[in-house]
Amino acid sequence: MAAAWNMPLDFNPPKIAIVIDKKTFTRDLIEVSGSFAINVPCRAQADMVMNVGSSSGHELVGKDPDNKYAAFNLPTFDASKIKAPLVEGCVAWLECKVIPEPHIQNTYDLFLAEVVAAWADERVFSDGRWHFEGHDELRTLHHVAGGAFMTIGETFQASRLK
Amino acid sequence: MAAAWNMPLDFNPPKIAIVIDKKTFTRDLIEVSGSFAINVPCRAQADMVMNVGSSSGHELVGKDPDNKYAAFNLPTFDASKIKAPLVEGCVAWLECKVIPEPHIQNTYDLFLAEVVAAWADERVFSDGRWHFEGHDELRTLHHVAGGAFMTIGETFQASRLK
Repeated sequence: MAAAWNMPLDFNPPKIAIVIDKKTFTRDLIEVSGSFAINVPCRAQADMVMNVGSSSGHELVGKDPDNKYAAFNLPTFDASKIKAPLVEGCVAWLECKVIPEPHIQNTYDLFLAEVVAAWADERVFSDGRWHFEGHDELRTLHHVAGGAFMTIGETFQASRLK
Repeated sequence: MAAAWNMPLDFNPPKIAIVIDKKTFTRDLIEVSGSFAINVPCRAQADMVMNVGSSSGHELVGKDPDNKYAAFNLPTFDASKIKAPLVEGCVAWLECKVIPEPHIQNTYDLFLAEVVAAWADERVFSDGRWHFEGHDELRTLHHVAGGAFMTIGETFQASRLK
C-alpha cells in the first residue's frame, strides 16, 4: 500500500510511527505477521505509487494474480529479518517489527514499530547522509493530497547564530 | 523548540502526531496548557530554527529575557484558539489541542493533538494546495540530522495507470 503518514519516533533503538487505515488489506497482514517493510519510493516511481495506493489487496484475494506485487509487475527482493518482500527501485527500505500498542492501533490507526534493519541506495545515500544532486529521478517522493506529490529539494547546512 | 518529527494522523477532525522530548521546556508548557502551535518554517528561517533548536528555554527561566521569542527577537502574533503565540515569517501555523494519551506520552514522548485552527501564507498556499514556484525562500524546511536540512522541491501530479 501507499502510506504517506509516517515519521521517526526514536534513535536508539530506532523506532518509527505510521498510520495504517483499518480498511486496508495491509493492515490485516501487519496484524497477523507483526512486521512490515517501509519502502521509500522515488520520483521515478510516482505512477507505481499512485497505482498501489488506488487499489486494495482485498480485491485480489482468490484472484490470479492474488497480490499487488504480481498485479503491478513489481520486482522484489528478500528482506533480512522479516518476511515481507522489499520493492526494487526504491531508494531506502526499513524492516520493521510492530511494538504492540492495541489502544492507539484501534483508536487512531497508529502503529509504532522498531526498525530492525535498514538499507539505502548508495547512489543517493552514503556516510549517513542523503545526496540527491545529479539524481533527480531518485529524489524521495512526498504525497500531499489527491495524487499531488512533491519531491525533496535542495540540501544545505544551517548555521547557529552566535 | 524545533520539532522535526511530526505527521498528520487524521483528516476529520484533523489530528496530528508529534514527538516532544521529556527534557525540553516546551514539554512542560504543553503538559500544563494542553495546547501548542506548530509553526511551519521556511528556507529563509533555517538559521533561526537552528538557534531555537540548539538551546533550551530551561536556561532562560528567571533571566531577562525569560523566553526564546525575546532572546532570538522572534516577532509573533496571537493565535485564535490557543494561548501560544505564532511566529511571523513561517508559511503555515497549526493551533493544536492535546488529546490526552498519557501512556504513549510517557513511554514514547509521542503526543497526539487535534488541529483546532490552521493558517497558511497565501503566497505559497491557496485553493488547498501548495505552490512554491517563484518563492524559493518560502519553501518548507525539513531537518535531516546535525543541522543538515532539505527544502521541499518540485510539485507534480502522478497518473494512475490503466
